[in-house]
Amino acid sequence: MRMVDLIEKKRDGLELATEEIDYIIAGYTDGRIPDYQISALAMAIYFNGMTEKERADLTMAMVHSGDVIDLSAIEGIKVDKHSTGGVGDTTTLVLGPLVASVGVPVAKMSGRGLGHTGGTIDKLEAVEGFHVEIENEEFISLVNKNKLAVIGQSGNLTPADKKLYALRDVTATVNSIALIASSIMSKKIAAGADAIVLDVKTGAGAFMKTLSDSEDLARAMVNIGNNVGRHTMAVISDMSQPLGYAIGNALEVLEAIDTLKGKGPADLTELSLTLGSHMVLLAKKANSLDEARALLENAINDGSALKAFKVFLEAQGGKAEVVDDPARLPQAKFIFELEAKEDGYVAEIVADEVGTAAMLLGAGRATKDSVIDLAVGLMLRKKIGDKVSKGESLVTIYSNFEDVSEVKEKLYENIRISTDSVPKPILIHKVITA
Amino acid sequence: MRMVDLIEKKRDGLELATEEIDYIIAGYTDGRIPDYQISALAMAIYFNGMTEKERADLTMAMVHSGDVIDLSAIEGIKVDKHSTGGVGDTTTLVLGPLVASVGVPVAKMSGRGLGHTGGTIDKLEAVEGFHVEIENEEFISLVNKNKLAVIGQSGNLTPADKKLYALRDVTATVNSIALIASSIMSKKIAAGADAIVLDVKTGAGAFMKTLSDSEDLARAMVNIGNNVGRHTMAVISDMSQPLGYAIGNALEVLEAIDTLKGKGPADLTELSLTLGSHMVLLAKKANSLDEARALLENAINDGSALKAFKVFLEAQGGKAEVVDDPARLPQAKFIFELEAKEDGYVAEIVADEVGTAAMLLGAGRATKDSVIDLAVGLMLRKKIGDKVSKGESLVTIYSNFEDVSEVKEKLYENIRISTDSVPKPILIHKVITA
Repeated sequence: MRMVDLIEKKRDGLELATEEIDYIIAGYTDGRIPDYQISALAMAIYFNGMTEKERADLTMAMVHSGDVIDLSAIEGIKVDKHSTGGVGDTTTLVLGPLVASVGVPVAKMSGRGLGHTGGTIDKLEAVEGFHVEIENEEFISLVNKNKLAVIGQSGNLTPADKKLYALRDVTATVNSIALIASSIMSKKIAAGADAIVLDVKTGAGAFMKTLSDSEDLARAMVNIGNNVGRHTMAVISDMSQPLGYAIGNALEVLEAIDTLKGKGPADLTELSLTLGSHMVLLAKKANSLDEARALLENAINDGSALKAFKVFLEAQGGKAEVVDDPARLPQAKFIFELEAKEDGYVAEIVADEVGTAAMLLGAGRATKDSVIDLAVGLMLRKKIGDKVSKGESLVTIYSNFEDVSEVKEKLYENIRISTDSVPKPILIHKVITA
Repeated sequence: MRMVDLIEKKRDGLELATEEIDYIIAGYTDGRIPDYQISALAMAIYFNGMTEKERADLTMAMVHSGDVIDLSAIEGIKVDKHSTGGVGDTTTLVLGPLVASVGVPVAKMSGRGLGHTGGTIDKLEAVEGFHVEIENEEFISLVNKNKLAVIGQSGNLTPADKKLYALRDVTATVNSIALIASSIMSKKIAAGADAIVLDVKTGAGAFMKTLSDSEDLARAMVNIGNNVGRHTMAVISDMSQPLGYAIGNALEVLEAIDTLKGKGPADLTELSLTLGSHMVLLAKKANSLDEARALLENAINDGSALKAFKVFLEAQGGKAEVVDDPARLPQAKFIFELEAKEDGYVAEIVADEVGTAAMLLGAGRATKDSVIDLAVGLMLRKKIGDKVSKGESLVTIYSNFEDVSEVKEKLYENIRISTDSVPKPILIHKVITA
């Protein structure tokens, strides 16, 4: 097999065979195939796409390029949730304890990553004492016992995907549905998921700006998952504005606690229940979506979801008292209100720019070496469609420095007030199953 | 400027600006821009093409990536001829002395190269004593004096093109009209041509198999040339079978001599007169194509073309007696005839396979280190459309080894005889001017 012939095949719109994709990915991983051939192939894929079969083959080739986590010692169907990323998305913190409380095993491998706020592990570290440095065996036994544990990323998962992603980033080949879908799915499968619930964000604050693109990506991932034997479904949810109110690490932990108590923001609660119901269904802990949802609503109402969160935090060294006493979370030194300059209705909250404002406060990581300030961030006081009077707070700013003029400026620029009333955005655009 | 943004621009079908193309080519030449970004760009160009302006800009950026030959000390308009390559193409050997004899200056920089037979220099070295190791000053003064000289390639011409071509070769991005045209034109312009006559081959033995592809390439090159201030035109000529009869180094020299004497093969003679007339016209040595052609026909008839060849050979150390005494050319030890196995008409002569047969005899270079046998090769005795009787010779094989069974087998496989009569192929398909 010669790589140049395989590039030509894809360039000419033909379908690559399983063994050809295996050859490409194995060769790229071990360095026999150079970057310059892979980038040419990636561009050919950008233009010609990949068939369903090719996408499944690429996904599994990347899965097998490195370690695959074996979660077979955990009882039950391990359902993983993946979000394509947005601003202020606290669903992971809510969903873990929520579905665990009804018996769905959640064995979460998580990272820190770059972004407007920290990753799941950073956020959880806002709880004093909580840590993810646990051995694999303990991780497994904790999931079996409590149905929920989080461990830091270890091992050499999907090295081909890492290498390919870094290359795509500098060769203008990121925006390929086939490559994005295979990348995401390979990571989930290598991390040991039996079934996968996808939260594909859509709108100005999401990677996919249009519903049509989001739907294409969702379908691509759902097809890959089901073609390689992992029950997979996707919810397309709104990211035209940040989800919930909190954008910041400790602030999001607090918001998750509120939501588990039944007092969270409406959109975060609804999305958590929707995604959670599908997780319960895929884990076969309910026979219908309605039944699954009823289980979860009950777990919130009777306190078992909140209890699951406490048990989980304690099992990994966290001081669970925080759940009843939010003052134990890291507190910012300064609190400012962003006052509305006029009467009207909130018409637009540009999610990624608001996320950038949180990052200016120190809530996120711009580079791998950035230090996150867990205490700081933003709490939206109004969302799209809300009525607002001049002088009312639009956002509360939690900061550890006194001069937040830059942050305020960015927020004013990206929260638009209209004199006409504005409808609230639709939260759940579509549910896609195989 | 960031390379990734330029790749994206081309990927999205937008036009790159002159300074963007300059940035890309300068950065690639000096190594600041890596292969993997250039190959992604090349694939984007493969799919989206380049505008006329981009092609001209790319050509000139490649010209300026290295040395540019200054031929200004040579009087007159320097017209270069370029062929896109075929089998048994002896036109360069004929055209040089032919147009020189009517006053068109031919300052030929030539190489050896890989292929079925050697390059122009190899062929000329079949003449005892002939050499191209002359100084630039002597080269210039020879052209001024005799209107014709050949020098070996020196200097660092179009390094960007060399690097880009090597990369395209392994990334399935050779077949882009924009990139092929810019590559060829950059080399001609860097070599100092004021005006360019292109011989674009078409048919089974050519790089471009269809007339439509050949025409696209011809138009692309003609447009580039004229857009950058070099009068350029193209002839699209047939390469469905080898041109002329000879395929081999000494054999082609002999065929060129015959043609300069007015006794050459009809197709080689006609193509030489056609290309030559356009060279004469571009050099402004005639006012019309008819006048140019009459000048050349006269130069053949009155012996001045042949004399120009002798003068040229002698000026570079060659024993010009060879012109009158072909026995002085290298002679093969063995001569075999390939006898027709049946009566009929020659229907097909697969040019590149016949070229490969010549290479098996040692006429060409497979790798840079191959040693060429100047004496060996093939003389076609029949061409497409010719009637042939069983036992008649189709090809004379000149070999320095006795067992030519493999060569014969290849020839039989690639010369098809039909019982029905077959028309002769059209030689000149099209002439393309700005």
